[in-house]
Amino acid sequence: MIERLTSLICGTEPMNAVWSPEATLQRMLDVEAALARASAVHGVIAQTAVAAIEATCKADQLDADALVREAALGGNLAIPLVKQLTARVKAADPEAAKYVHWGATSQDIIDTATVLQLRDALALIESGIDATCAKLADLARAHRATPAIGRTWLQQALPITLGLKFAQWLDAMLRHRERLAALRERALVLQFGGAAGTLASLREAAPKVSAELAKELGLAAPALPWHTQRDRIAEAAAFFGMLIGTLGKIARDISLQMQTEIGELGEPAAAGKGGSSTMPHKRNPVGCAAVLTAATRAPGLVATVFAGMVQEHERALGGWQAEWDALPELARLAGGALAQIEQIAGGLEVRPERLAANLNVTHGLILGEAVMLALGERIGRLDAHHLVEHASKAAVQTGRTLYEVLAADSAVTQHLDEARLKALLDPANYVGEAHAFVDAVLASYAQCAPHLSSQTHQE
Amino acid sequence: MIERLTSLICGTEPMNAVWSPEATLQRMLDVEAALARASAVHGVIAQTAVAAIEATCKADQLDADALVREAALGGNLAIPLVKQLTARVKAADPEAAKYVHWGATSQDIIDTATVLQLRDALALIESGIDATCAKLADLARAHRATPAIGRTWLQQALPITLGLKFAQWLDAMLRHRERLAALRERALVLQFGGAAGTLASLREAAPKVSAELAKELGLAAPALPWHTQRDRIAEAAAFFGMLIGTLGKIARDISLQMQTEIGELGEPAAAGKGGSSTMPHKRNPVGCAAVLTAATRAPGLVATVFAGMVQEHERALGGWQAEWDALPELARLAGGALAQIEQIAGGLEVRPERLAANLNVTHGLILGEAVMLALGERIGRLDAHHLVEHASKAAVQTGRTLYEVLAADSAVTQHLDEARLKALLDPANYVGEAHAFVDAVLASYAQCAPHLSSQTHQE
Amino acid sequence: MIERLTSLICGTEPMNAVWSPEATLQRMLDVEAALARASAVHGVIAQTAVAAIEATCKADQLDADALVREAALGGNLAIPLVKQLTARVKAADPEAAKYVHWGATSQDIIDTATVLQLRDALALIESGIDATCAKLADLARAHRATPAIGRTWLQQALPITLGLKFAQWLDAMLRHRERLAALRERALVLQFGGAAGTLASLREAAPKVSAELAKELGLAAPALPWHTQRDRIAEAAAFFGMLIGTLGKIARDISLQMQTEIGELGEPAAAGKGGSSTMPHKRNPVGCAAVLTAATRAPGLVATVFAGMVQEHERALGGWQAEWDALPELARLAGGALAQIEQIAGGLEVRPERLAANLNVTHGLILGEAVMLALGERIGRLDAHHLVEHASKAAVQTGRTLYEVLAADSAVTQHLDEARLKALLDPANYVGEAHAFVDAVLASYAQCAPHLSSQTHQE
Amino acid sequence: MIERLTSLICGTEPMNAVWSPEATLQRMLDVEAALARASAVHGVIAQTAVAAIEATCKADQLDADALVREAALGGNLAIPLVKQLTARVKAADPEAAKYVHWGATSQDIIDTATVLQLRDALALIESGIDATCAKLADLARAHRATPAIGRTWLQQALPITLGLKFAQWLDAMLRHRERLAALRERALVLQFGGAAGTLASLREAAPKVSAELAKELGLAAPALPWHTQRDRIAEAAAFFGMLIGTLGKIARDISLQMQTEIGELGEPAAAGKGGSSTMPHKRNPVGCAAVLTAATRAPGLVATVFAGMVQEHERALGGWQAEWDALPELARLAGGALAQIEQIAGGLEVRPERLAANLNVTHGLILGEAVMLALGERIGRLDAHHLVEHASKAAVQTGRTLYEVLAADSAVTQHLDEARLKALLDPANYVGEAHAFVDAVLASYAQCAPHLSSQTHQE
Repeated sequence: MIERLTSLICGTEPMNAVWSPEATLQRMLDVEAALARASAVHGVIAQTAVAAIEATCKADQLDADALVREAALGGNLAIPLVKQLTARVKAADPEAAKYVHWGATSQDIIDTATVLQLRDALALIESGIDATCAKLADLARAHRATPAIGRTWLQQALPITLGLKFAQWLDAMLRHRERLAALRERALVLQFGGAAGTLASLREAAPKVSAELAKELGLAAPALPWHTQRDRIAEAAAFFGMLIGTLGKIARDISLQMQTEIGELGEPAAAGKGGSSTMPHKRNPVGCAAVLTAATRAPGLVATVFAGMVQEHERALGGWQAEWDALPELARLAGGALAQIEQIAGGLEVRPERLAANLNVTHGLILGEAVMLALGERIGRLDAHHLVEHASKAAVQTGRTLYEVLAADSAVTQHLDEARLKALLDPANYVGEAHAFVDAVLASYAQCAPHLSSQTHQE
Repeated sequence: MIERLTSLICGTEPMNAVWSPEATLQRMLDVEAALARASAVHGVIAQTAVAAIEATCKADQLDADALVREAALGGNLAIPLVKQLTARVKAADPEAAKYVHWGATSQDIIDTATVLQLRDALALIESGIDATCAKLADLARAHRATPAIGRTWLQQALPITLGLKFAQWLDAMLRHRERLAALRERALVLQFGGAAGTLASLREAAPKVSAELAKELGLAAPALPWHTQRDRIAEAAAFFGMLIGTLGKIARDISLQMQTEIGELGEPAAAGKGGSSTMPHKRNPVGCAAVLTAATRAPGLVATVFAGMVQEHERALGGWQAEWDALPELARLAGGALAQIEQIAGGLEVRPERLAANLNVTHGLILGEAVMLALGERIGRLDAHHLVEHASKAAVQTGRTLYEVLAADSAVTQHLDEARLKALLDPANYVGEAHAFVDAVLASYAQCAPHLSSQTHQE
Repeated sequence: MIERLTSLICGTEPMNAVWSPEATLQRMLDVEAALARASAVHGVIAQTAVAAIEATCKADQLDADALVREAALGGNLAIPLVKQLTARVKAADPEAAKYVHWGATSQDIIDTATVLQLRDALALIESGIDATCAKLADLARAHRATPAIGRTWLQQALPITLGLKFAQWLDAMLRHRERLAALRERALVLQFGGAAGTLASLREAAPKVSAELAKELGLAAPALPWHTQRDRIAEAAAFFGMLIGTLGKIARDISLQMQTEIGELGEPAAAGKGGSSTMPHKRNPVGCAAVLTAATRAPGLVATVFAGMVQEHERALGGWQAEWDALPELARLAGGALAQIEQIAGGLEVRPERLAANLNVTHGLILGEAVMLALGERIGRLDAHHLVEHASKAAVQTGRTLYEVLAADSAVTQHLDEARLKALLDPANYVGEAHAFVDAVLASYAQCAPHLSSQTHQE
Repeated sequence: MIERLTSLICGTEPMNAVWSPEATLQRMLDVEAALARASAVHGVIAQTAVAAIEATCKADQLDADALVREAALGGNLAIPLVKQLTARVKAADPEAAKYVHWGATSQDIIDTATVLQLRDALALIESGIDATCAKLADLARAHRATPAIGRTWLQQALPITLGLKFAQWLDAMLRHRERLAALRERALVLQFGGAAGTLASLREAAPKVSAELAKELGLAAPALPWHTQRDRIAEAAAFFGMLIGTLGKIARDISLQMQTEIGELGEPAAAGKGGSSTMPHKRNPVGCAAVLTAATRAPGLVATVFAGMVQEHERALGGWQAEWDALPELARLAGGALAQIEQIAGGLEVRPERLAANLNVTHGLILGEAVMLALGERIGRLDAHHLVEHASKAAVQTGRTLYEVLAADSAVTQHLDEARLKALLDPANYVGEAHAFVDAVLASYAQCAPHLSSQTHQE
């Protein structure tokens, strides 16, 4: 656990487990074992060799320190791993040792192992997205009509509903669900090409072994190997990066709304989390900070994978190797950020009194447009505009509310009586399509995730 | 034209036209005009105002210098554009002037204009991908069986066919075609939300005007505005970046194969292109350099758009504005790089004599594996391995070819006669699944682009 | 002007002029003219040729469209420029035409022109830094003792002074001044190596011409050409990027303090800038948004230049060309961001009543530590801590101020009387070293920029 | 060791040790211990507390797993570390426990620990640069006059000397030495500001404790704390990134020159490194690949640190935390890449026969310019140009060498006899200033590193 000490605020245990050094080794060994089985099915290697190879494909039996040392010489982990594996198989069954890694190149093993890890990672991400969507949907539903101030340029603009904000976040997450499905289709494929991508050493058995290996591993079989065509990996990196970007946006909003002076939202309280014994007013947005850290780091990691796409010839020099840290790190950051937002969304403190108070900070100025439109129907838009503009300035200068100024102006009151004026100046009455937008997103959520949606609806 | 002087080696005229300052203004005006029409249909603004507004929505009528000056004060281009537009409409029809930009916010106009430009850009990219695929398919077909050396780590490894290389590139391009289709579905949507994303000022007409506006512009209508949910734009950026990455890989390979000492490929000769009067041996890979420039720049631009996703509240501060240069630049780089590769692929010089010569550089060592496998069937793999390894070392030390060494060794010749040995040492006979892989990609190309595929087939 | 339409919120006129297409051409022609002069001094070319060449080195005489077209074929701008230049010189003096560009390669001209532009850019940046420092120093001096709330994690923490914030910004700017000086030393050097960096075609005259050319242009002479050693350019990119980062931090703080609910600071009001006629409460941080846009874009541009450093052999393919947009763009962003902060700092609205009000938002909780320390001297730290912690929680729960709670507790009042308690709860009395820190930065400013410092002091 | 399994090709043991989780903890504890000592000197805490605190500041005594768990809640490592430390001190000396971490904030501890680690990292980098410079100087000296082909656009251009290439690399490294010195001056400073950067809780003792703490740790004392002014860290990141860029350029060149078809250079052979038992012709540039991996990853990491500079108020949310992985990773990549190049440069195989053969690939065309210049002195430049251009084309078309064509042309031989022609077509005679440039760099090396230079000179 200590090895992730310095990146402590990202990652979840299951996601870290997917990409742990031990899991990486085991996934490579899983590919070697599956290759032995697939080769034996088609007579390329002796059936008797399979058991010996399978039995030795256990990460905890390897000398990891030796692997690290020798990997530096060979240039990748598969080279010493095959060497150790072969030596251990040989000890048990010398004949079987000849068949270890038959027909494969290092990159076949490393890439396919990565794809297997990516599959696990995407399963975790999918659960996380679903769980987060469910919580955001609950929030959107619960606060569908809760008035809140809409802010542009970090300035108060017009009223919205808090549910609209949540629906916006949910809507983006639903698109990430779609992208995840498309990514799976394209990226979860076998890598198997041998030394130069021709599978030459397997001769006529090549297509059958390749197909069998894909089946063994539950991966799709690509038209051909893709050693230096890295768009699949780049798409995975971009997916993680976009997801993190959306989560970062959510964290940005929440942390801004948690500011001491604003106080509309709060991360769920947890023992030891974000609090301060001497400053009880302080509730640090620790979860949001973790997500924002991920969002600061992700673009550079995505750029790294993209930069690495320019690879030389049949197998490359630097571009491929740069993926080895960047892709797992993106998956960890995505998993960690998602877990944080899921947890925050699941226990988000909403403070209606602060939402209401903030809607009142401008003493009604945020609703000038509503009055202007209503007045415009009686006296024409231009006159209405001048009248309200003048009243707004007067309110600012004299420290009165907009209501007070307007209610004192007979040019207004002859068209809009007190009750009407009060209604117009009620933020809840000027949220436009907010309710409809929330409903539209919830409907689209129900459609794309019927099981999840109905579930949370019943709660 | 001069304004693109310093980035001279990227962009195509049509793509640069899509994103030119003039086109940007016109697209914004197109949105304003469509908004007037859509609003009039649903009675929000007077039908009589439409003609006056439409007539004024001409980019060449605007004072562009004033726009630039005032945009700096307002923070975006739409603010002074609406101001100028209103003033000009007013001169023609004072009543109509009141209805300019009705219900919209600056970002609605800018984002929707960007989406319209993106639509045009994607159409150009699609044509470019299709044309490039056709040329790569021709190359793959023509060189399906042309032996070439496969290189890994920039070292000669095993034979491949040149067609396999082209098929690899084509295969990646086909995936980009799929991504483009998915991107269109998600990204080509209207942005229309008004000041805080609620369309409040349009009151009950909002949903109808919004739907009508989407229809007018031929865009899909999203569930709700997406002012600060930028995953659509990020996906577009990532698409361009991935496409450029693949093109960069192609350019890297071609430029490496064009090295004076290797000379297997050549960019098509063109008057004034890449040649040198005093050094006739020199054929600079100018097109590849342009593509590699794009590939060096794209990751940073993608990262910029991703970094900008973390946007504040309902409309943001910096993250959105950072897209304004990055997204068009990515489109230009993608368009320019694609045009270069299309042109290079369309006239690629393939030099069979250099391909053959390079296959011979190691005097047969690259085929040791082929001999070893054949020999292994007779004397067992381990012995065969030792024998070939020994022969390879002898060949290197004595400067003989591998054939000479093996043919002089009765331990070999008793199992493999001269003719068999020669056949084993012919690179064309050890390309594994190369032919099948080429066929598989061509089949998948024929399936996903039947019209294009049949077309080129007939040529 | 219109060509910079879409990046409208960055750049200043002088900085844009430095990097304009016209200036770029002229700088290249300046290098050609200087080369002619330097060559003639040392007898490499005829003295009579110089006048003809110099007379033709005028950017406005060139056919820029032809340059753009042909540059795409040749791969850079210098190739067609030399061609046009030669043709024009030839028309005037056929003999002189032979001596155009003598001994140089395209990259010599382009790189040296870039260095000349960089020199101009750094001069503008230096002025901008100096002007900004002067304004920040004024602000730091003026608000040396103005209490303000210090915020960590976007939460109120402890009091600071507003001057401390300004001093922090100033302190960082002073380090950028130092970096600028070091950058000049290393980066403002001649590039002159000829086709392969050996100056072979100049034979024995090479060192003299090279030294003379450096002198002509006022540049330092490097030990040797640096065609593919780009650390100097990377350092320039990093300098701009770091400067923009600091300016982005300043803009982030100001925009946060300008939030409607916080309102402590305001960008200077300017006609048409950031205001809204219908929403008089709204003052958009337009200048800050421009700076934050620059700060979002800069990291990707710096990364691009760094990625381009990995260049092939004697002259390269893609890495060099990627600098052509990235470096000027960084300079423009730095210049634009600096101008914005200079202008904002020069007219920053400081609202003492809002600063004071915000210090009161927690009803005194932010000063619990001050009371605790004072009390600790009487009753021991641990007891004091418990007492204040308890009082703070009571204040939050009962809605009273911390003063009210403490003043009602005899365990406190027996040690700290009302006056003492009030003093302890006055934020101005708990700002620690804030005054001293401000003074230290102002002293260091006075030291490193005595002329500037004394000047503003007198105002 | 296994924790660095997936980034196996970067890092050196000493550099990894500097940034290991254990070292990170210990450095934080070192700061806590020094703070106790410094506070006691100035009477802020009891002298008796110091020993208890110091005795407990041992990383191996902490429960690291608990730290990781709680750090996720608190948002950084210092919070649980102080908690554990306090608990352990309390067990030994309850009175001393009150004084743990007195006056400091988490970020003080983390930043200062990072600076201490940075100091160690820079010492390692300096040694590495010095050792690499010594080896590059040896190479430049040894191959000062070895002819080699200069390549531009990956095409053969003109002859250079191999020593010139090495001198170019050395020259860049010398500039990095300068940058390192400047970085140390600016970046190796104490961070100490307390909760809001005012050191308020230390009251009048603040300046003395702060100065003492800096002295204790051997760090410079800054004018004021720099919690959210991150230009120092950004400069460190940029330094590592630039250094890696230069190393990447060296690796790019070496790997290109190691191509099977070129074969001019070779990484030093090492048991198990880069070889292949079945393909004895293959010598994989494993060291270069490691360096190129670092060069692919560094730009994104630098961009991350730069992006993180935009930090909020007095202590920030995400930008700071993003440094925690990026800065150490950059240091590791720089250290690892440097070690690779040092090792490669120290044992670089230079193959004179391949250098010579490659100079002959164009059959003399690369020396057309030399002939043209000599001939021009007799018959005028223009005629000479036409003559050589014509001869070059003839050579290409007829498959003859340029010498053969020229020697058969009386228009040439009447001015240049055979011997002169042969001399002109000898690459060694047309390397321009190459020798002088090598000497200039060696002289500048001798000047800036006299001890190193003289040392290697004697060898």
